Amino acid sequence: MSKSIFYHAGCPVCVSAEHDIINLVGVENVEVVNIGENRNRIPEAEKAGVSSVPALLTPNGNILHINFGASMADVKG
Amino acid sequence: MSKSIFYHAGCPVCVSAEHDIINLVGVENVEVVNIGENRNRIPEAEKAGVSSVPALLTPNGNILHINFGASMADVKG
Repeated sequence: MSKSIFYHAGCPVCVSAEHDIINLVGVENVEVVNIGENRNRIPEAEKAGVSSVPALLTPNGNILHINFGASMADVKG
Repeated sequence: MSKSIFYHAGCPVCVSAEHDIINLVGVENVEVVNIGENRNRIPEAEKAGVSSVPALLTPNGNILHINFGASMADVKG
């Protein structure tokens, strides 16, 4: 995989971080996934190691948790 | 300012995040500052809004706190 994936849940912290990440990395290099709306992507995010959002899954499989917005428990509700 | 600044304190979490950020953003676009060693940069980091390291100051002045490594209080000791 060559793209990063930015997981978020639509919270204000998430949206702000999304803009920053896209500016830094380039929109063509990031897939943005709202796991609040797109709940069938939650298991994949958890498997990748996402424990809070926003989080960036890098092409080499590392997770960068950014400015804490919401825990996965909160997202799952 | 057009470069981002990556503040860290040499902790393992910091080093891992540094590699990821450099891979994503490009080494030419990031200044890396170890505020554990380079303590005269601490006031500047705090003024920019860094409350824990590692953290990335984006060109537009936002702070992205990444995978919690150490609080500024711990860095200052």
